[in-house]
Amino acid sequence: MNFDITILGSGSAVPTPKRNPSSQFINCHNRKILMDCGEGTQFQIRKFKIKLQSIQIILISHLHGDHYFGLAGLLSTMNLLGRDGQLTIYGPEGLENILRSQLKIGDSKFAFDITFKTLFGKEREIIFEDKKMEIHTFPLKHKIATNGFLIKEKEPLRKLKKEAIEKDDIAIEYRHRLQKGEKIMDASGKILDLDRYTYPPKKARSYAYCSDTMPNESNLDLLNEVDLMYHEATFVNQHKARAKSTMHSTAEQAANFAKKAKAKKLILGHFSNRYLDTNTHQKEASAVFENVLIGEDGLNIKL
Amino acid sequence: MNFDITILGSGSAVPTPKRNPSSQFINCHNRKILMDCGEGTQFQIRKFKIKLQSIQIILISHLHGDHYFGLAGLLSTMNLLGRDGQLTIYGPEGLENILRSQLKIGDSKFAFDITFKTLFGKEREIIFEDKKMEIHTFPLKHKIATNGFLIKEKEPLRKLKKEAIEKDDIAIEYRHRLQKGEKIMDASGKILDLDRYTYPPKKARSYAYCSDTMPNESNLDLLNEVDLMYHEATFVNQHKARAKSTMHSTAEQAANFAKKAKAKKLILGHFSNRYLDTNTHQKEASAVFENVLIGEDGLNIKL
Repeated sequence: MNFDITILGSGSAVPTPKRNPSSQFINCHNRKILMDCGEGTQFQIRKFKIKLQSIQIILISHLHGDHYFGLAGLLSTMNLLGRDGQLTIYGPEGLENILRSQLKIGDSKFAFDITFKTLFGKEREIIFEDKKMEIHTFPLKHKIATNGFLIKEKEPLRKLKKEAIEKDDIAIEYRHRLQKGEKIMDASGKILDLDRYTYPPKKARSYAYCSDTMPNESNLDLLNEVDLMYHEATFVNQHKARAKSTMHSTAEQAANFAKKAKAKKLILGHFSNRYLDTNTHQKEASAVFENVLIGEDGLNIKL
Repeated sequence: MNFDITILGSGSAVPTPKRNPSSQFINCHNRKILMDCGEGTQFQIRKFKIKLQSIQIILISHLHGDHYFGLAGLLSTMNLLGRDGQLTIYGPEGLENILRSQLKIGDSKFAFDITFKTLFGKEREIIFEDKKMEIHTFPLKHKIATNGFLIKEKEPLRKLKKEAIEKDDIAIEYRHRLQKGEKIMDASGKILDLDRYTYPPKKARSYAYCSDTMPNESNLDLLNEVDLMYHEATFVNQHKARAKSTMHSTAEQAANFAKKAKAKKLILGHFSNRYLDTNTHQKEASAVFENVLIGEDGLNIKL
């Protein structure tokens, strides 16, 4: 099943011709999630041919403008294009109030239902869960309350070994239970051998979004062995002091963090507009962690 | 001296690949004015190579999102790029509060000074005036309080007739006063003949911005003989009923209004995203008014 991430904005607060402010679109088992929503996100959604109305969940990491100034316009367009499907927005305290004020002064009403859920950025929490996936939030270390997000699929089903199943004529009703790894006693009182009839399940895939933050090692246990980690890398080593004072990270710090978390792959983003290219980010991160990707607007990564 | 308009956004509430939401940049005698500021206006400013920090005045017509959702991001970018020059924003009640709330929840402060001036959309007013130009506001007829704007240059100076000036050896100190049309008595007690020494001044140029509105004939006297009128034309005749119920205009209504105002030229904009092109707008407007321009993002018009 699908689990992929599309980068909609890989820039930081000052947008550039190539990099919009932060936003990502995630499709996890056809659950469609928008992660942050900087100005112009609705233009990027159109440009990269994502179905606007397919978005069911919006996660806002924090209330610096480059992470949410596109939200009001996005919601307005959803409404004008006839949305009726419910939408849930998870975001910091104050977001709902701003959006409702904007609706009120425009004397506007939406024809679809929005549920706001407030995140306080202070503790870990499972904020969404269904049979296919779950979303965790975890606190980051930034100037204002900021949430990271971990999207994990539920453990996939075991794959059936067809030959053995057919040979032993295993009843249809047992097959799905075998896939789920259940212990089954058949009509004759025999326990079915799971390894005879199924392959072990694939490992559940996971994606971590570490939005604006200094490296926050208290999250290492939660993010251990994550398949893909996005970590902001606003700066390079030359501006390490600036990274510290603004509570952002350098590319090397992001890579060190990914290494300690034993992440399989790291994608960097939120690059300051002061850099003409990301060669130094790539070089400094690759020196400590081998599997580094540079985020680019429009880049799609399949897990 | 310069008096020109650049269309930054010619679309309406739902942006399209070719049309951003409403915004225009006006240079009148090097006074730099931004008229409305839909989402993505800062991207358009960059795209069309306008100097962001040159903007001194921002006029917001009303508080539907497609006219102001780009303002918070624009101000933030001005600040991050080191602005220290003062900025004045004229806009409806509620705008300042929204922007200040956004700053507050982001724990952000701007290093430059913003003066907010509230417009109520209920009566005409001269909101800005200096020696080169003046800005009038006038009420429009829309679903919420909406302001139109009229930018008029002050009457230009008379041009000197060099030959006569030199022939009669008119003193240097009289020349600028002659340009201003003053009645001057020279040292010998003779009144200087204005027509002998100067040509009549060019007519003062003017630009009217009729943002979201039904045609509002109570403004015809103020806008009489305006050089360029922008008038919204969200719809074509086929959707006249929709224009009425949403308090917008059709292209034909806009053209009729321009005709009654004896405007020299009309530029249309705020086209609904339902239309694939503007051929019908052009056709229906041109049937009643000859000098019709279709607004396009990036179009620059010199007065």
